[in-house]
Formats: sequence, structure tokens, C-alpha cells
Amino acid sequence: MKTLESITVLDLTQAYSGPLCTTLLADYGANVIKIEPAGVGDMTRYWSPIINGYSAYNELTSRNKKSVSLNLKAPEGKKIFLDLVKKADVIVENFKPGTAAKLEVDYESARKVKPDIIYCSISGFGQTGPEAKSPAYAIIAEAMSGHMDLTGFPETAPCKTGLSIGDSMAAVYGAFSIMMSLFQRSLTGEGQYIDVSMLDCLFFATESAVINTSVLPPERVITRSGNREIAFAPYDCYKASDGYYVLGGGTERHWISYCEVTGREDLLTDDRFKDNDSRKKNELELTDIISEFSSKHTRQEMVDMLSKVGIPCAPVLNIREAVVSPQIQARNMLAKMENPKTIGAYHIPNVPVKFSVSESSIDSPAPLLGEHNEEILSELGYSPEDIKELLEKGVL
Amino acid sequence: MKTLESITVLDLTQAYSGPLCTTLLADYGANVIKIEPAGVGDMTRYWSPIINGYSAYNELTSRNKKSVSLNLKAPEGKKIFLDLVKKADVIVENFKPGTAAKLEVDYESARKVKPDIIYCSISGFGQTGPEAKSPAYAIIAEAMSGHMDLTGFPETAPCKTGLSIGDSMAAVYGAFSIMMSLFQRSLTGEGQYIDVSMLDCLFFATESAVINTSVLPPERVITRSGNREIAFAPYDCYKASDGYYVLGGGTERHWISYCEVTGREDLLTDDRFKDNDSRKKNELELTDIISEFSSKHTRQEMVDMLSKVGIPCAPVLNIREAVVSPQIQARNMLAKMENPKTIGAYHIPNVPVKFSVSESSIDSPAPLLGEHNEEILSELGYSPEDIKELLEKGVL
Repeated sequence: MKTLESITVLDLTQAYSGPLCTTLLADYGANVIKIEPAGVGDMTRYWSPIINGYSAYNELTSRNKKSVSLNLKAPEGKKIFLDLVKKADVIVENFKPGTAAKLEVDYESARKVKPDIIYCSISGFGQTGPEAKSPAYAIIAEAMSGHMDLTGFPETAPCKTGLSIGDSMAAVYGAFSIMMSLFQRSLTGEGQYIDVSMLDCLFFATESAVINTSVLPPERVITRSGNREIAFAPYDCYKASDGYYVLGGGTERHWISYCEVTGREDLLTDDRFKDNDSRKKNELELTDIISEFSSKHTRQEMVDMLSKVGIPCAPVLNIREAVVSPQIQARNMLAKMENPKTIGAYHIPNVPVKFSVSESSIDSPAPLLGEHNEEILSELGYSPEDIKELLEKGVL
Repeated sequence: MKTLESITVLDLTQAYSGPLCTTLLADYGANVIKIEPAGVGDMTRYWSPIINGYSAYNELTSRNKKSVSLNLKAPEGKKIFLDLVKKADVIVENFKPGTAAKLEVDYESARKVKPDIIYCSISGFGQTGPEAKSPAYAIIAEAMSGHMDLTGFPETAPCKTGLSIGDSMAAVYGAFSIMMSLFQRSLTGEGQYIDVSMLDCLFFATESAVINTSVLPPERVITRSGNREIAFAPYDCYKASDGYYVLGGGTERHWISYCEVTGREDLLTDDRFKDNDSRKKNELELTDIISEFSSKHTRQEMVDMLSKVGIPCAPVLNIREAVVSPQIQARNMLAKMENPKTIGAYHIPNVPVKFSVSESSIDSPAPLLGEHNEEILSELGYSPEDIKELLEKGVL
């Protein structure tokens, strides 16, 4: 059984954060109706890469959903929206704060026709506060959260994460919050409003950095340290002849094993590296020694050599290598898809969590814009003629 | 009402991923009983910074929980554990795969005494596959997921995120999955087993990188690009006199405004920068020009100047600055705490999602090891004498 097969979600979101949130619900069986601006569609329909005139990006976040094109500014469009709300359990939107109210598709408008609706807003900075209406590029939320200053090397500029961690985090916190609300509704019959922001989620994810600001002296800088570990060495990303690998030696035993397996027993009695404290103090020299050795070996040779003696390590895989790696394959983390109407064959990451009972699957590729207009509107009682007229008027 | 006040969670986790997962449940009212190794406790009790002999780190992830110290290897300890399972709804563990079964505290053991138990395992690489038992340092999961190769500057080594995004992601995916299971149990009465891994969650979070491997030609490298945007320029992190700021000009209007407000209308007719394509091609020179101008101004001066004309931008705040920033303050994202028994006053990030109905709060600071032994064991029918004896035997 798919856990959410009794749940209908109206999806007013675009771009990445909101669509990823509703994707998590759709993959577990929710009936997600994606409402897209009539004639235009979700902005990701124009995002690269474009194959055969269609966006591959859009396949990622629209799978398992139905598409209805709707002009929410037209009175007929608003009526259709409210008719859909009456049959829905959950609404998700990621407009700029204020826009949903202006369009009259906000929580207040929705609960008038469906008092127990669960309504989740996802935004860059939240619905309140001085930055609520600032443009919510992910890099801006990362910059303001403290996260970006904490990522990168001390000798270079701060660095955002390679992929939009603000969107990703807000999406899953949104899905978690919606499930909390569905559970609460099952107890009390009540719906509610949820306000999720990228900034809040990123700030929450700064691990011990915030508590450290309050217990460490003000002069103690809390900032990025590349791939190093504050507490021990060696623990870093090192060069091999064909790329990089990581090695995390957290114990004295790891260090001894490293010296033995690389034939450098001399380092064990070298004053610069004799204990963890010394190694931390002379970490730059230590890094040079480790990289010099490994630059004559491939990543795989290094990983084979080090794992054999129990040292935690791994090659740094690029995404093409990750896709075909044994663990990703063994975990069935790749969904092979085919969309004959758009980009043809492709693969995307599979649903990330394994349940013993709750089923999940990626069944249908992304719909065309308005592909389910007829199906959904006829369920609301519209005749084929009505639908044709709405299309001609640009409502659909 | 706190949504989860009827839910009891047995928390067998240590370090960060598992404790963060159960923290999300505790903050919304779940009765979380943290079972810690007798005499030793969660490993975070020894993590820096140490204040007055107590770990600040441990305050972060043990708040709102009760602590029972328990030797799971002793027969009496196992009995207490199973008695607790009978009264629990959810169990969360993040042992190395295989350890829970060896200790007989795994799903199979638990469901024998509580058939509808929801049991969530969190691990580095999942319960299956060739890497299941590899050491699960977060940097290793990042390296294997493709995430690390995608983060950092092209001219430097790959870079992990500053804070442990693998743990953070696995934690919230765990909480989402537990809520899915509680919802499913409310429909069918059934419990289930959940297998969450850092690697799966990170791989899932690589946005369009995976689909791009399948639709772009093999020679097309998909790797890190620092803070730049593939599609447009300027969009980067730039130097100011007192630090860094980000600027994301996605439209032609933004570029024109930038040139006007900085008095560089000459750039508008400069062939190197006349349209987005040219700016992307000459991005290094563009960056130099922008940084040279802003290096004579503070971050705040730059942000004031650029926001006034509608250019998306923000200072890169370090964590101390983020904590006191107006938006974080306005969102009430800081919980001021006091633990008179351990580290005294401190602050931590507040619960990240705002609900209109579901209440959340951080009420109690981290418990001492075994602080709730008496309370919890007397609920199970143990007398003060029994408890004293168990303590003396090292079971508690």
C-alpha cells in the first residue's frame, strides 16, 4: 500500500524547493495536482538542459504528478481552484510572500471552502520579518544563514554548496511538516498553516556553530576549515594521480596503520607527527607528505591500500562515477525512466528511503503542460464544451 | 497542543544524525527516552567545547529528552529495554549495521514484544550493499555521493559542506519517514521498518546532476563551479573591504542597474560585457571589475547600494553575525537556554518550522546521564531497591 494514496495535494509551486516537497509526497502515492500558469507552465519547463525542445530539469520534479494549466487571475480560474480546494487535503505554494494573498489563493481563502485544509508555504526567508520579500536565490539564503561562511577553504572565498541545499532542506522540512499536520488532523480533525523557510532550515542545520557562539570567547573565530577536522589529523581530502580521495584517521591506530602500509614507519618517531597534537600543529607538512605519496597512485589504489588496514577512506566520485558506483547500484538508487512525449530515456535518483511496508515508486514521467485538464475538470463536472471554451478564453 | 504528545520514542542513537532526528520529534512533544550506554553515555558527552566539565555539543541534541543509562549486554538491561519497547511507538537507532541485531535490540527483537512498532535505522550507507559496514564519517558519504565533487572551486580540491549535511539530511528524512509511518499506522494499525542512509539522501539531493549525466554527452563534465551560476553573470561571491557579499543578477535589467549605480555606464557598451553571453565568456574579467569596485566599500555599503536598485544581494555573514541578524531575530530562530547543572547559559537554533496549530518548544536542557533512571524504571514497576541494585551491578 502506498501510504498517501488517500491524500490529494494541490501543488502551486515552481522551481525546485516546492516541487521537490510535493515530489516526496507523490512518490509515496499522494494524488498531486500541479497547477501551472496557463500557457506558460512551471519556470523549470525552460531550464536547461533542453532535449527535443523539452526541459530535462522539469522531468526531475514533475514526475508522478498531474498537470492542470490555470490562469488564477481569471474569475473562472479562481472558481476552478476553489472547487479543487474542496476536494484537497493539502496545498503547497512557494510564491514570493504576499503573492498568494493577492491572487486570493492563500490559506485564508482556502480554509473558507475547506476548513480542515493543510496549507504549506515555502519561501526563502519566511512569511515574516524584514527580509520576507527579498529575492530568494538559494545563494542569498546560504549567505545569510552563516552556512556559506562555514563552507570552503580558509584561504579562499566562502563557498555555497554545489547543489542547492537551501531548496533541498526546505523541501524535506516541508514534507515532514505536512506529515506532522496530517497526523495531527487524524487526531483532532483540524487543519493548519505551515511556514517553512530556506533561511530557518539552513540556520537550524549549522550543527554546533550556534551554541559555540554563546559558549566560546568572542575572539574565537568560528569559520570554514576546508575538509579538515578541528579535533584530529590526518583527516582531509588528498590528491591521487587521477583525482582526489578522502581519508579520515580518527585514532592513533589509524595513524600507525597509515605509516606502516605506506612504508613510512620513520614518521612514527618524527617529532612533528608523534602524537595527534603534533600532527594538528604540523598539518600542512603532513598533508604534503600524504599527497606526495598518493600522487603516484590512483584513487582506487589508495583506497584499496588504506581500507585493507582499516583506515576510513573513499574516492571523491564525480556524479557520473557516483551513478555507476556499486553502493548506489546495490541500494537501487537509480530510477530508469522513459518519456516518449518529451526527452526520451533518462535516469533520476530513486526515492531515498526504504520502508518495509510503505510502498513508493516513480511510475509516470513529467506531464505535458495541462495534460490532465480534461481528466481533472470533468471530475469537477465540467463538460468537454466547457473545457473547450475555457481553453479558448485562456483560462486553461 | 503538541502534535506528538501521545508518542513515545526510544532513542538508541548517538553522535549527530540520529539524535537530530529524535530532537525533531521531541521538539513537537514526543516523549523521547534516550538510552545511553551505562557509565559512559552518548559519545557527544565528550565532544568539545567542554564547559565546566560538560559538553556544549551534547546540549544541542539531547534537549527535551529523558536519559536512561542502560547496559544492553546485561540480561537485566535487555529485559528493561524490552519492557520499554512494549510501551513505545517508535525506536530510532544509528548503530553500525549489524550491531543492533548482535545486541538483540533490532527490529525483529522489538516487534516480537510490540508488533506495531515503528523502527527507524539511520546509517552512513544503508543496511545493505557492499559498503553497508564501512565507517560512516560524513565526509566519506559526501565523497561517495557526488556531492563533494560538486562543491568548491574548479581550481581547488573538492570541498565538503562546512557542516555535516549528510547527518542533517538523514535526520530530517528519518523524521519525515517516521511521520509517514505514524500516519500509515493510524490508517492500518501496522508498524514497519525504515532504512535511512546519508549516502541515499545526499545522492537524492544532487538536484539535476544525475539526470544530466543521462542526457548530456559523456564528454560534458558535470562538476563544481564555485559560487557561479551556469546560466548567467554576474552571479558570484565578491570581495568587499571587510569581507564578502553575494550578488545575483539574473536579468539584463539587473546588469544595467549595476552599471548605473556604480557609475560604470561605460561597461554597457563594452563588447566584453554587452550581453549575458559575453559576460559569461569574460566572467573572470567581470569578477575583477566588480571586486575592484567593491573592495573600496564595506559589505553593508555594497548591499545598501545594490538593494536600493533592486539587485538581489546579501552580505556573507559569519555565524556570529547570523545569530544577531535582523531576519534570524525576527523569525525567533534563537532559543535562549540555561542548564544550571552543566554549562550554564547558552543559545541554540530554535525549532525551524512555524505551524499555526502544532505547538513546539524547547523546554528542558540536556539531562545528565541516567537522570531519569528512577522515573522511567519506577513506571515499569521497579522499586527503589531494585534500581539501587541495578546501579550497583552496572546495569544502569
